[in-house]
Amino acid sequence: MIEVGVVGAAGRMGGEVVRSIDAADDLHLAAALDIDDALDQLEAAGVEVAIDFTSPDAVMSTLRYCIGQGIHVVVGTTGFDEARLDEVRAMLEEHPGVGVVIAPNFALGAVLLMRFAREAAPYFESVEVIEMHHPDKLDAPSGTAMHTAESIAAARRHAGVASSPDATGRMLEGARGADVSGVRVHSVRVRGHVAHEEVLLGNPGEILTLRHDSLDRESFMPGVLLAVRAVGARPGLTVGLEALLAR
Amino acid sequence: MIEVGVVGAAGRMGGEVVRSIDAADDLHLAAALDIDDALDQLEAAGVEVAIDFTSPDAVMSTLRYCIGQGIHVVVGTTGFDEARLDEVRAMLEEHPGVGVVIAPNFALGAVLLMRFAREAAPYFESVEVIEMHHPDKLDAPSGTAMHTAESIAAARRHAGVASSPDATGRMLEGARGADVSGVRVHSVRVRGHVAHEEVLLGNPGEILTLRHDSLDRESFMPGVLLAVRAVGARPGLTVGLEALLAR
Amino acid sequence: MIEVGVVGAAGRMGGEVVRSIDAADDLHLAAALDIDDALDQLEAAGVEVAIDFTSPDAVMSTLRYCIGQGIHVVVGTTGFDEARLDEVRAMLEEHPGVGVVIAPNFALGAVLLMRFAREAAPYFESVEVIEMHHPDKLDAPSGTAMHTAESIAAARRHAGVASSPDATGRMLEGARGADVSGVRVHSVRVRGHVAHEEVLLGNPGEILTLRHDSLDRESFMPGVLLAVRAVGARPGLTVGLEALLAR
Amino acid sequence: MIEVGVVGAAGRMGGEVVRSIDAADDLHLAAALDIDDALDQLEAAGVEVAIDFTSPDAVMSTLRYCIGQGIHVVVGTTGFDEARLDEVRAMLEEHPGVGVVIAPNFALGAVLLMRFAREAAPYFESVEVIEMHHPDKLDAPSGTAMHTAESIAAARRHAGVASSPDATGRMLEGARGADVSGVRVHSVRVRGHVAHEEVLLGNPGEILTLRHDSLDRESFMPGVLLAVRAVGARPGLTVGLEALLAR
Repeated sequence: MIEVGVVGAAGRMGGEVVRSIDAADDLHLAAALDIDDALDQLEAAGVEVAIDFTSPDAVMSTLRYCIGQGIHVVVGTTGFDEARLDEVRAMLEEHPGVGVVIAPNFALGAVLLMRFAREAAPYFESVEVIEMHHPDKLDAPSGTAMHTAESIAAARRHAGVASSPDATGRMLEGARGADVSGVRVHSVRVRGHVAHEEVLLGNPGEILTLRHDSLDRESFMPGVLLAVRAVGARPGLTVGLEALLAR
Repeated sequence: MIEVGVVGAAGRMGGEVVRSIDAADDLHLAAALDIDDALDQLEAAGVEVAIDFTSPDAVMSTLRYCIGQGIHVVVGTTGFDEARLDEVRAMLEEHPGVGVVIAPNFALGAVLLMRFAREAAPYFESVEVIEMHHPDKLDAPSGTAMHTAESIAAARRHAGVASSPDATGRMLEGARGADVSGVRVHSVRVRGHVAHEEVLLGNPGEILTLRHDSLDRESFMPGVLLAVRAVGARPGLTVGLEALLAR
Repeated sequence: MIEVGVVGAAGRMGGEVVRSIDAADDLHLAAALDIDDALDQLEAAGVEVAIDFTSPDAVMSTLRYCIGQGIHVVVGTTGFDEARLDEVRAMLEEHPGVGVVIAPNFALGAVLLMRFAREAAPYFESVEVIEMHHPDKLDAPSGTAMHTAESIAAARRHAGVASSPDATGRMLEGARGADVSGVRVHSVRVRGHVAHEEVLLGNPGEILTLRHDSLDRESFMPGVLLAVRAVGARPGLTVGLEALLAR
Repeated sequence: MIEVGVVGAAGRMGGEVVRSIDAADDLHLAAALDIDDALDQLEAAGVEVAIDFTSPDAVMSTLRYCIGQGIHVVVGTTGFDEARLDEVRAMLEEHPGVGVVIAPNFALGAVLLMRFAREAAPYFESVEVIEMHHPDKLDAPSGTAMHTAESIAAARRHAGVASSPDATGRMLEGARGADVSGVRVHSVRVRGHVAHEEVLLGNPGEILTLRHDSLDRESFMPGVLLAVRAVGARPGLTVGLEALLAR
């Protein structure tokens, strides 16, 4: 039984996490803190792993406190750039036994899609990405699709594979999508969609399609629990859920 | 048993048509002419319905000859604009019993997709079109997708439906596809694809998807045979296969 | 402005309906009754169209009361067999100006899918149905898929079309799905699915796919509003939303 | 430049292989043998890698001859069971520098699909397989789908994951597909399909879909060329293309 503490338990994601911990046989919810609660309740409650779903402003305090107390941390809060990650690495240097997992995306399907797309990309002549979201989304392409396309492009460059062929001569502006490092990305915005991503890989006579449909934030929970169970055995900083997935 | 003559029987489509007529129990292949053969063989062979898959240069002669002889005609040859259609109508005025069917697309699935998309379009908040082809294709979007999008746009205008919502603020150029009369069209080019079209229609909480995959020109044959069987009972000019489909 | 009353306003569907009426510019929520409230509040509030999402036990009283008062009714409550429909028809005979719409499914996409499947079915050599739901569903195939398959089968019989070809010789039990009036139906149960239906229609060289994804009961609202707006102009009983959709 | 010999060059697959070797800059077609031609032409032509697409009867002679001459072999011929593989291993023991690659499926997309399905399977609550083929196919499920399902089942057993949940109580016979080691497999047979496989993996709120569409045997060529280029550096027996794919 792992003793778990949730920081940001009153938020939407935090509340979902609390319910998931409660439902897991091998995890015990020892503490559930709102974003303003005193962090030393974690120590008092015997927490072994803390989960932070707060805000970019609050998360660094959680990390500093927990690492100092020898409490492992799983972080779902966003806003980590290289400078912030370096700060966390510095904190961990003085506490070599502590593990921290920081993941921008806890949906296992999304993480696996990106890994599979990167692994398959060098073996196909063509690769394109289609992402589909509700029409209230502000950015196009989505951040996930940008990241997927860049990851595909890097894998192909690394393997010395040529760009996807494209004989388009007469084109209506925009028809062929956005060019992300040489990979075409199409952003569909249709009411009824939530968040969906599709990678199409093609060779003569065959197509491999990888698709992820994300319908609800409860899809993050299996990934959060996986990280909670794994973090104790991974001292130091782990960025991204992928490193925790077996092959 | 209908006596059928094929003009352009040595071409790729013509050859396919000859095989299909041979395989149909209710049709008899009375004449198979190459593009340069004398058309009066049709009369001599007792042809009731002629099928023309030749070239924009040759097809008008076939039409003039057949209409004059009282032979019905099914035309798969491309290149008919309004001026040409008017020419055919004028020919038919003097032979009111003769039927002519001119169809730009004999794939039943493609014709039905377009009809269904047009009928469904007014009932959904959002509509977008994705078309997928092999990367040797020169134009983007495809002619079929352009036609589908325009048909959807007209149906929505007619019903007084607003444009599909789109909150996109930050966009990488091209990400949201081409704007065809207010309908977004995305052109995917991946090796392994042949010719595919998808229409996505969305309301809060639901998506209706219409998709057509065209893999081989043999897909035109059921539509050609349908026209051959129907043309005798439809005096005058019929443009498009849709008018022949029951509801 | 149409004056609308909701019966069963405290239920899940009823609550959703109340919100939708509130959001519509041309409809006014004049009364919102819980399942046990006195129906004569409808009359007092000047309701022109009542919407009933209650239970098979309660709905007949709503119908009797409203028809007697000259109030049109839109019914989303389930449980109507032919005997019950006859009862409603008898009530309406004495009040020929009143309209009643009873619909088993208000999702426009689902209704259109069924119509399109039925219309397309005679033109294709093969037709099969795949339905996908969450794994807590008790019945397989789903009622909607059963209804779709039967409707396809009837359309093909009516058009004199042969059964879909199937050369299967060596089969693991169940692999080819359930046989519903000669149409194969496959029931997929995967966590993360909500309610999805796909109809595959195939000819040599082409496939037409019709798919409906239903993610949330809010998808019923456009259909409910459509019925509320149309019922006043349709005296007598209308069963199913399809009759209200223009062609 | 690798000197390549094709055995079975007059067959359908062999002919396709010949064309692919001709088109590759780094491979030279030194010999193209029909199934009855004398194998010592391979030696005479300086062949370094032989490709065998013959028949279960002929392939063992090719292997014996080539291994004896120090020629590497890529085998696409079917019919290898464990006894036959042991025979090949025995031949190779005496010629430790020779490499043999025997692959049941050279479509890279199919091989990657199976690998990804196996790797993802332990992370999802539900997994099901849908395979779609033309209706002239004799067996259901397809061999590939059987293999995929068994591979998924083994991966889940190995990881200690429970069976996919299924609350089905009322079922029409066959609706839930075939049970392959606890994984449900659905076999769709629709005219217009060629060979398609889809693996659906689901968790609460998310679905990961892996799909492979195989339209033409030319899809095997990239895999054959990959094996030809790799076999010289892999002494001994390699079964399956997967071992040749980098991660």
